[in-house]
Amino acid sequence: MRIGAVKRLLVGSPLATAQARHERLAKTSALAVFSSDALSSVAYATEEILLVLVVAGTVALTYSIPIGIAIAVLIAVVVSSYRQTIVAYPQGGGAYIVTKDNLGRLPSLVSAGALLIDYVLTVAVSVAAGVAAITSAFPALYHYRIPLGVLFIAGIATVNLRGLRESSGLFAIPTYLFVVSFAGMLAYGFVRWAAGWETPPAAVADVATTENLTIFLVLRAFSSGCAALTGVEAVSDGVPAFRPPEAQNARVVLAWLGIILITLFMGITFLAHHFHVVPQAEETVISQLARLIFGGGLLYFEIQAVTMLILVFAANTAFADFPRLAYFLARDGFIPRQFATRGDRLVFSNGIIILAGLAALLLVVFGGATHALIPLYAVGVFLSFTLSQSSMVRRWLTRREAGWRWRWGLNAAGAATTGLVMLVIAVTKFTHGAWMVVLLIPALVLLFLMIHRHYADVARQLSLDEYAGPPPIDHTVLVLVGDMHRGVAAALRYGQSLSVAVKAVYVELDPERTQKLEERWGKWGLGIPLVVLTSPYRSLLRPFLEYVDHLLALGEHHVVTIVIPEFVPARWWQHLLHNQTALLIKGALLFRRRVVVVDVPFHLR
Amino acid sequence: MRIGAVKRLLVGSPLATAQARHERLAKTSALAVFSSDALSSVAYATEEILLVLVVAGTVALTYSIPIGIAIAVLIAVVVSSYRQTIVAYPQGGGAYIVTKDNLGRLPSLVSAGALLIDYVLTVAVSVAAGVAAITSAFPALYHYRIPLGVLFIAGIATVNLRGLRESSGLFAIPTYLFVVSFAGMLAYGFVRWAAGWETPPAAVADVATTENLTIFLVLRAFSSGCAALTGVEAVSDGVPAFRPPEAQNARVVLAWLGIILITLFMGITFLAHHFHVVPQAEETVISQLARLIFGGGLLYFEIQAVTMLILVFAANTAFADFPRLAYFLARDGFIPRQFATRGDRLVFSNGIIILAGLAALLLVVFGGATHALIPLYAVGVFLSFTLSQSSMVRRWLTRREAGWRWRWGLNAAGAATTGLVMLVIAVTKFTHGAWMVVLLIPALVLLFLMIHRHYADVARQLSLDEYAGPPPIDHTVLVLVGDMHRGVAAALRYGQSLSVAVKAVYVELDPERTQKLEERWGKWGLGIPLVVLTSPYRSLLRPFLEYVDHLLALGEHHVVTIVIPEFVPARWWQHLLHNQTALLIKGALLFRRRVVVVDVPFHLR
Repeated sequence: MRIGAVKRLLVGSPLATAQARHERLAKTSALAVFSSDALSSVAYATEEILLVLVVAGTVALTYSIPIGIAIAVLIAVVVSSYRQTIVAYPQGGGAYIVTKDNLGRLPSLVSAGALLIDYVLTVAVSVAAGVAAITSAFPALYHYRIPLGVLFIAGIATVNLRGLRESSGLFAIPTYLFVVSFAGMLAYGFVRWAAGWETPPAAVADVATTENLTIFLVLRAFSSGCAALTGVEAVSDGVPAFRPPEAQNARVVLAWLGIILITLFMGITFLAHHFHVVPQAEETVISQLARLIFGGGLLYFEIQAVTMLILVFAANTAFADFPRLAYFLARDGFIPRQFATRGDRLVFSNGIIILAGLAALLLVVFGGATHALIPLYAVGVFLSFTLSQSSMVRRWLTRREAGWRWRWGLNAAGAATTGLVMLVIAVTKFTHGAWMVVLLIPALVLLFLMIHRHYADVARQLSLDEYAGPPPIDHTVLVLVGDMHRGVAAALRYGQSLSVAVKAVYVELDPERTQKLEERWGKWGLGIPLVVLTSPYRSLLRPFLEYVDHLLALGEHHVVTIVIPEFVPARWWQHLLHNQTALLIKGALLFRRRVVVVDVPFHLR
Repeated sequence: MRIGAVKRLLVGSPLATAQARHERLAKTSALAVFSSDALSSVAYATEEILLVLVVAGTVALTYSIPIGIAIAVLIAVVVSSYRQTIVAYPQGGGAYIVTKDNLGRLPSLVSAGALLIDYVLTVAVSVAAGVAAITSAFPALYHYRIPLGVLFIAGIATVNLRGLRESSGLFAIPTYLFVVSFAGMLAYGFVRWAAGWETPPAAVADVATTENLTIFLVLRAFSSGCAALTGVEAVSDGVPAFRPPEAQNARVVLAWLGIILITLFMGITFLAHHFHVVPQAEETVISQLARLIFGGGLLYFEIQAVTMLILVFAANTAFADFPRLAYFLARDGFIPRQFATRGDRLVFSNGIIILAGLAALLLVVFGGATHALIPLYAVGVFLSFTLSQSSMVRRWLTRREAGWRWRWGLNAAGAATTGLVMLVIAVTKFTHGAWMVVLLIPALVLLFLMIHRHYADVARQLSLDEYAGPPPIDHTVLVLVGDMHRGVAAALRYGQSLSVAVKAVYVELDPERTQKLEERWGKWGLGIPLVVLTSPYRSLLRPFLEYVDHLLALGEHHVVTIVIPEFVPARWWQHLLHNQTALLIKGALLFRRRVVVVDVPFHLR
């Protein structure tokens, strides 16, 4: 009862199925809803590039400019490619669905595995980066970054368990605030640069050079920067949420998303280079940049606040995506069925809870550090990009609809580019953590297949085809008694009501007590025969199980129902004061066929 | 099955009740069996005195001599007092029994609470000190002292779960080895002293003086040293294990124990003072002393080995005492009944497991440090001494048997002395941890009383006095169905075999599925009526519970049996792939009277 009350308070009252409704989004709202994930990555992408380069000394940081340009081109290619997916999948083209449609089961499971991992990492990375934005502004909180992150995750999960009904309004504020604030900061930064104003005392720390600047290192820096692309697929997943004409509007929004993303990312990368920002453990690159441009003050804190806000909203998108994908997988029988049931509030509660738990675990294990999680992140993202776009390539080739050639070309370019990038990431980041994902994805696929086989197997065993109907039953009811009292008397009456073939069974541990029981049996035994089993080893179970086996051997249609009187105390702790005999017997008989255990509760006051 | 095999390997095959036998001990064996606890405390008692004094500078260590003499006198008083208990309780005079007999229930529960705490501390302190003996000899192991300690506890618990049948032979070796080795070391030390041989380069470290030498500090040092007395009551607890004449032999053995204990403790205290031993975190006083006397080498390692051995055996005695006391308390209904049942191997397994768990927890929480546990230890020991001897005082006064006067005098002296010491310990050690025990003992007594009341209450509710017999039953059987398949068909057949008043109940979450179910019902429903309940909130439970309540309201003798078809997968992990509907429904109905839930297993291959 009390647990129920807490749940109501946090999650709200149940909603009826009929209350489910779908709101359609205008382009401006849709841009806000679907871009928070993609845009939020500019909060850490530049920093990740610099973090890799800096091991070759501060001079190596210059390479951030060509790497940034390469990533901008990559964004343009991927955005163009996804605009074609929108045309073909106005009903929503998530990687799992698209791959399943065009490449078949195994590739679709690979992409599902990659996506599930990505969603967990989106939450972990975004929350870690959001917490970093706060601790950069308030260094005293750095020590508490892990509990803070876990608290954020718990908060987002709770909001999602309630169900986000006013989502678009809620989303518009932080996304546009973020875009305007960052655009303003960058503009002001470029003005200062152009005007040749003195840059403030540079934060150039002396950094020990620990590696040589090799092509491998530059590629690794590029791989880290590719985190900027995470989330660009969101628009194509969510086409049905747009106002009509859905596909047309979604294509426009995706183009806008690409332009904003490239602008912000390149702006930050150029200015960070110009102002000689060097990545530091306890302060983010964005925080350093904002401090240099605005010289601290209110505007600085505003930048940190909107950064944190958009990152939290980015994490929130995974709380919509993960449960939805889990629903598809559960419906297709690749993960436990429980992920397909909607909870009280019409949301897929199990998916939300599992996602929050896994993300919190990752955050704790990796010490709440964004850069430690990034190597795990990008492989899966680019794997799902590649599979999704390869599927489109296949689709255009198969269907050859009007204008398929140039769409095919764009998707082929996208698939080839993202595939290449995926390989680069996997190789350059392998020893930094990408190996975990490289191992985990096939392991997940194997698990999906095992679960699928189990469900298929169960369905076959349960099938009514060629079924002659259940066999007849010869019923014996045994009431297990350890004493004679009101609880036993009630259980005897109950056993008597089930069958005329009822017997009471007593396992003798102490002959004196047997005699006492037999004396009382005449008055209270309801005429039911009492079977006494001896137990030289004081085991209650062994002699009883042997007796049950003996009864089962009497005939193949023989079913034994074991009635056990069980106390139900008024308070939970009182359970500890009574033997859990019923549980013990149930456990011992779990795998015996034709045995049913019934505990008859005797309610204590 | 596999868990069973592991248990057999560790614990051995079950023993029949008839296999229980009692061996009687000769005086020499009895001395070994009952003295390990008391003697082992000399391994740390002197060190505990020095640890307190040293905060007032090395000069203050001189006070160890008068403190040592005071403790020796205290030992003599307590031993004389317990020799009187032996006369009065030849059947064994544990503090709980003696107090219950003479002072009544509440004091006996206080002494039981104190004793239970003491047994846990005996294990924790002895194991911590035993590990310290090892890590003094092998400093590299110091870092692993906590896991080592937990391992020791687990080992002792395992041996006790097997049952110690060859105990006396096993006990004689370490006890006598310890006595002989320590006596030898001390004799050699005194010879060197008397001969005026140069003491080796003294280990006198410079110690920062942090407190003034006050009477309070000296009393606190005395309190710490009182740990030397723990375990002297063991002989009087175990009188029935002696060969006849039991009481006479036990009195002789207790006198010997007192003499040996005083000799070893005083010897160590004098020599530690003479050789200027200063307590250190990473090496015990005994280890330093042995090193100084023997100059390292084989004899040094022998001393460390026998010290460790006797401490492990001391911990082992608590594994006999705790379960036995728990048995008495469980039999009297003050702690859960499960403590009164003997396991497969004729030992009280539950008591052994709980003791090991609590001791390991203490060891971990207190960082495996002996001196951190000592302040918790002595209060309880002296509380039970005081209660036990006060009981004897009362007894002599009430019975006035022949020669009661001087026995009364000895017990009164014992009670007064130990009572005074208990107060000194409680006050001087209060802030160092004794407060926990001071709070814990009344909390335990309260718990004992609550449990006792619960059992009395249950017995009253179950009593057959004035009982008219169980009421008749109007039975309705409901088979809960979610689909139509072989598992459901089997459950329907089973439900049919229980009662003619059988109905199938289906909660509609999706009208399409209802129609499909109804179509199949004609062929497979066995003619059982199907009740369809609608559920606007997609909840399986709510409409079903309402229906059950409706049936229960039909009459006060109406009993509803709910049959739930349940899958039993072939492998445990497959449980995760199926809804735990049966569990859910059972939980929801747990506190409803006149409802019985039956899950009919359908075994999957």
